[in-house]
Amino acid sequence: MIELPYVLRHENICRLEGNRLLIGDRRVFPFEKRFEVCANVQEVARSLQAMVTQGGGPLEVALQTMILVTNQMQQGLLGHGFETLTDAAKLLIAARPTNTTMHRALSHLLAAVQPKQADLEELASALKQEVSSMLDGYDQLYHQMGRLGSSLIADRSVILTTCFAEHTFLLSLAYAKESGKEVRVLANETRPYLQGSRLTAVSLEEMDIEVNVITDGMGATFMEAGKVDAYMTAVDLLCMDGTVVNKVGTLANAIAARYASVPYYAFSISPDPSKQGRADVTMEMRPPQEVKRCMGSATTLDSIKALYPAFDSIPAQLVTALVTPKGILKPEEIQRNFS
Amino acid sequence: MIELPYVLRHENICRLEGNRLLIGDRRVFPFEKRFEVCANVQEVARSLQAMVTQGGGPLEVALQTMILVTNQMQQGLLGHGFETLTDAAKLLIAARPTNTTMHRALSHLLAAVQPKQADLEELASALKQEVSSMLDGYDQLYHQMGRLGSSLIADRSVILTTCFAEHTFLLSLAYAKESGKEVRVLANETRPYLQGSRLTAVSLEEMDIEVNVITDGMGATFMEAGKVDAYMTAVDLLCMDGTVVNKVGTLANAIAARYASVPYYAFSISPDPSKQGRADVTMEMRPPQEVKRCMGSATTLDSIKALYPAFDSIPAQLVTALVTPKGILKPEEIQRNFS
Repeated sequence: MIELPYVLRHENICRLEGNRLLIGDRRVFPFEKRFEVCANVQEVARSLQAMVTQGGGPLEVALQTMILVTNQMQQGLLGHGFETLTDAAKLLIAARPTNTTMHRALSHLLAAVQPKQADLEELASALKQEVSSMLDGYDQLYHQMGRLGSSLIADRSVILTTCFAEHTFLLSLAYAKESGKEVRVLANETRPYLQGSRLTAVSLEEMDIEVNVITDGMGATFMEAGKVDAYMTAVDLLCMDGTVVNKVGTLANAIAARYASVPYYAFSISPDPSKQGRADVTMEMRPPQEVKRCMGSATTLDSIKALYPAFDSIPAQLVTALVTPKGILKPEEIQRNFS
Repeated sequence: MIELPYVLRHENICRLEGNRLLIGDRRVFPFEKRFEVCANVQEVARSLQAMVTQGGGPLEVALQTMILVTNQMQQGLLGHGFETLTDAAKLLIAARPTNTTMHRALSHLLAAVQPKQADLEELASALKQEVSSMLDGYDQLYHQMGRLGSSLIADRSVILTTCFAEHTFLLSLAYAKESGKEVRVLANETRPYLQGSRLTAVSLEEMDIEVNVITDGMGATFMEAGKVDAYMTAVDLLCMDGTVVNKVGTLANAIAARYASVPYYAFSISPDPSKQGRADVTMEMRPPQEVKRCMGSATTLDSIKALYPAFDSIPAQLVTALVTPKGILKPEEIQRNFS
């Protein structure tokens, strides 16, 4: 069995300890391995908003928070009505509007346990079971997609990536390596939060996969020079028409990949059926001061203005294929495979 | 007369004080306004290598250093033969191999004063006069190119830029503003040295031109969204076939500009006649640890590897036009205008 790197192990993404949820703080990794300790759903929502975790982290945090809330209902610390659960879910969803995977997972969980709402003990037991089966389900999907992804990686290839594409991407590399392929990665540092330098590069090193960090402007340089065989990223949100929404910086590389005839592959568990295309996606603008800081230091004067669009919308025609649990699909095949 | 911002004033680029050359340290600006003090050409070469100044800075530093050397020759501190000057020039040129403008300026200077080598006093006087006339000449060219550049800027337009395009770009904006045009700038922060955040943004603010800093991955985002009217940069080296060599990150934006139908204009005083095209350009790789640091802080673990190609080669077909002293030229017009 392939071992996941530190940041992606369940217990380091988040874990329940008594009446608290501990969330692995990805903002300070790898310099510190600290956990944000949350005593209730409000504190969890604040942590999600503050980007303590990212990518698939919020999904796992949200599911574990529902267990925390259920525990607190059982202890009489919170109202025992079903609306305690729906209110908690709303708070979590509002904390990360672009993360519709978390939104859909919470909706699924609530729908699954609603029939048990008459009896708190039954409700609690159903909820814990459902969360556990959902988490197992995701783990299986991750490995399935990792195996699929590895089929796109040729021997002796160099893969460019942006941000931290987590399980599916790392498992693709791990399965490629396991099958004897040599693979190297170029990781965009991914300003302003540096997920590439801090999370991707460190996790790959841990997995013994060769990696070099580059700045966010260098992806095109290496692709145009013929030194990259594929560009691969996660997907923060996939629209039904194949539009990929992902970390800002992804579009620049997708355009350069097309220019340099490098294929662009993105990993997605499923599209969001409520988003037909780009027009349905609300783009999150984050606090501009983040762009004026790096590792806590100011990069310019206070008086200077900045802009921080957090995500890019990548038109379907720039996406070579999507790695999904239903196979490797062309963007135009998403609609009919997920309807 | 349009006033240049702090960093671009002659006395802040570098100035002679007695037997020392003071070089404005662009690495710490705007947080500190410090000067690197150099007592001889060796110390100047080391400062150039350490990136104390950049862009057109090394050119001015090199010319002033030749005066410093001449002064020291007159004081009997250095050998009085002409080879003292040629050796000094060699040292300076070797410190910044990609900066062929400095190389050519030094060659021009030496050729101009060589006839006076028999008499040290005459040589010194000729050299000082030539440096002064060269510097005046550059100032005139900068303003001429600034006026040309301003003709490419429409009213109410947004200009994207990378790194610090200095006089020609800033004067283009200033002349556009002077003629009543409203203009705003998006400045890529330009990792790893952050010339965009520290030099471009602060200089524009000083000139009262609206500017927003963005990370290096965001240029494509704004261009593709139809929010940019032109992409403009300096040129570190222009080849005879119109290939532009400029700060890494420029290529990514030039490709995205073409994709989004945004014109890309680059400023160049003259091509390097010894470089026909990309194949003749030696690409400088800088120390990779720079990519793993930002404002002095580590961005990842020491053990992680990085790559730092310092420059991009932008194929002529991605360049809409070059702003030169001979007019606004298409890349394919360079050869016949500068032969």
